[in-house]
Amino acid sequence: DPNLKVFTLNSNPELARDIAKVIGVELGKCSVQRFSDGEIQINIEESIRGCDVFVIQSTSSPVNEHLMELLIMIDALKRASAKTINIVMPYYGYARQDRKARAREPITAKLTANLLETAGATRVITLDLHAPQIQGFFDIPTDHLMGVPILADYFDSKDLGGDIVIVSPDHGGVTRARKMSDRLKAPIAIIDKRRPKPNVAEVMNIVGNIEGKVAILIDDIIDTAGTITLAANALVENGALAVYACCTHPVLSGPAIDRIENSKIKELVVTNSIALPEEKLTGKIKQLSVAALIGEAIIRVHEDQSVSTLFD
Amino acid sequence: DPNLKVFTLNSNPELARDIAKVIGVELGKCSVQRFSDGEIQINIEESIRGCDVFVIQSTSSPVNEHLMELLIMIDALKRASAKTINIVMPYYGYARQDRKARAREPITAKLTANLLETAGATRVITLDLHAPQIQGFFDIPTDHLMGVPILADYFDSKDLGGDIVIVSPDHGGVTRARKMSDRLKAPIAIIDKRRPKPNVAEVMNIVGNIEGKVAILIDDIIDTAGTITLAANALVENGALAVYACCTHPVLSGPAIDRIENSKIKELVVTNSIALPEEKLTGKIKQLSVAALIGEAIIRVHEDQSVSTLFD
Ligand SMILES: Nc1ncnc2c1ncn2[C@@H]1O[C@H](COP(=O)(O)O)[C@@H](O)[C@H]1O
Ligand SMILES: Nc1ncnc2c1ncn2[C@@H]1O[C@H](COP(=O)(O)O)[C@@H](O)[C@H]1O
Repeated sequence: DPNLKVFTLNSNPELARDIAKVIGVELGKCSVQRFSDGEIQINIEESIRGCDVFVIQSTSSPVNEHLMELLIMIDALKRASAKTINIVMPYYGYARQDRKARAREPITAKLTANLLETAGATRVITLDLHAPQIQGFFDIPTDHLMGVPILADYFDSKDLGGDIVIVSPDHGGVTRARKMSDRLKAPIAIIDKRRPKPNVAEVMNIVGNIEGKVAILIDDIIDTAGTITLAANALVENGALAVYACCTHPVLSGPAIDRIENSKIKELVVTNSIALPEEKLTGKIKQLSVAALIGEAIIRVHEDQSVSTLFD
Repeated sequence: DPNLKVFTLNSNPELARDIAKVIGVELGKCSVQRFSDGEIQINIEESIRGCDVFVIQSTSSPVNEHLMELLIMIDALKRASAKTINIVMPYYGYARQDRKARAREPITAKLTANLLETAGATRVITLDLHAPQIQGFFDIPTDHLMGVPILADYFDSKDLGGDIVIVSPDHGGVTRARKMSDRLKAPIAIIDKRRPKPNVAEVMNIVGNIEGKVAILIDDIIDTAGTITLAANALVENGALAVYACCTHPVLSGPAIDRIENSKIKELVVTNSIALPEEKLTGKIKQLSVAALIGEAIIRVHEDQSVSTLFD
């Protein structure tokens, strides 16, 4: 279909190529470079007049560079008379700044939603938002895809050597753990962190039965990996047979890789919503592709069909 | 006046301190840092409710970092009930992307104007915009200050050892050279670059009399310094006694410093609209402060007076 165009910017070019393959199109021709002083220079090298355009870009690190690339691309597409400008953000950066936790804080997740709309985006396709409320930050249609089925299917196809239990590393993640447990028909457990007194170390209390079981920890984002590695070690100390971990978005900043390597985690299963450089793809990390999921979503949006049935 | 607050972000903290001194206030308390994954974290540490807030930030390199700091700060100020949010951008990044020079290009200077307004800016104070049309990209009031008087006064106070001529390095800069020549009561000359045939090297034709004179080249931005150093060398070859150069915005990226050092330019006079790191402040570069000009503009805006008389 000549009216469907898929472009990639610099955050996930490999994922974009895989998505284009799923859809059966070539990636749109476009150069995204830097002037000598670091300003972004974008040239769209084919006509997109009257087309449904999809731009693949996660606002992963370097988040400000990736966000500005996206905003400038949207501006260029709008001025070049695209019919619709659909932004595909497998990872939505700044999602954790989604509320005022203290006085005089910004709400950057809302700011970036406003910036994307101002630039000219007409639709957003994203994956496992840190908080589902972020959909409400947009006044344009959003499609919110879910990574849990991809992660669950991986574990389902693998012999884990024992009965499994799905573990949420904190209270905030119980809904996500519940979805995983439904798919895998396994019970859940929750790590309940408590500080007995101020300035006393946290105690990791485990709610649910994990003894002699294979535990699968699940979170949406793993960033510095402090929470998840402490949780894994607590599970082993309390009698888990083995501990796997999984998440949709492998931010993996700072000490993350060292912590994972030195932890009791047997394998960390993630998606490619964020591209990982060679040096982060250690033996413990398994990366699954969301290309088929996103490709299918793009086809449906282009054909004016509902995306929600993708989750059945 | 407790209702006047001046904040700095990370692009020009020294200039901001000097501006605060001119005004006679302390800089507002605010921390601008990075989370482990590179996302910007801003905490405003004093009440600004009901205040006229001025934020000093050039969108100099790294432009995307500096722009996002500014947008997030504006969001935080808006949510903290500032009365007015005045952004002071001595250097307005992306100003050269102010029109579609080719098909399917963005107009990033307009995009950034929209982003600043969307975030919540209520006024913009800036200096020597690359094109004065950029003022029209905003729907909020803008004050457009001029650096020429500061540069002219410097040369006026200096014994240059001969009659001077003000030289524009291209046709686009003649208006600016004319302003300088009015202040210094000196004639002007123009470098007229011409390509005799396609794929033949440019010829530097000098319109105006420069022989035996001290030439002062003037531009708004010096970026890679290719134009200005070629112009300087052409002036010397054509009989100029000595060549000085000046500009408001010392972008000085890539080969700029090497080119200037190896050129016939005797001294390059710039302002501190862009902070220069130690290694760029070579012996040939003289940096003048715009703190007094901007400080005075802030006082006038806060007192609801016209800024335009600053140029008399
Ligand atoms: N990039 C980031 N890295 C670490 N913490 C963040 C980041 N962005 C926001 N936060 C903080 O994380 C908290 C929200 O995280 P959560 O409670 O998991 O939703 C807020 O208090 C934010 O200040
Ligand atoms: N940061 C930059 N560095 C070099 N060239 C640029 C930059 N931004 C825009 N341009 C180009 O510079 C031209 C405008 O410069 P000018 O003719 O001096 O107004 C346009 O063709 C832009 O594509």
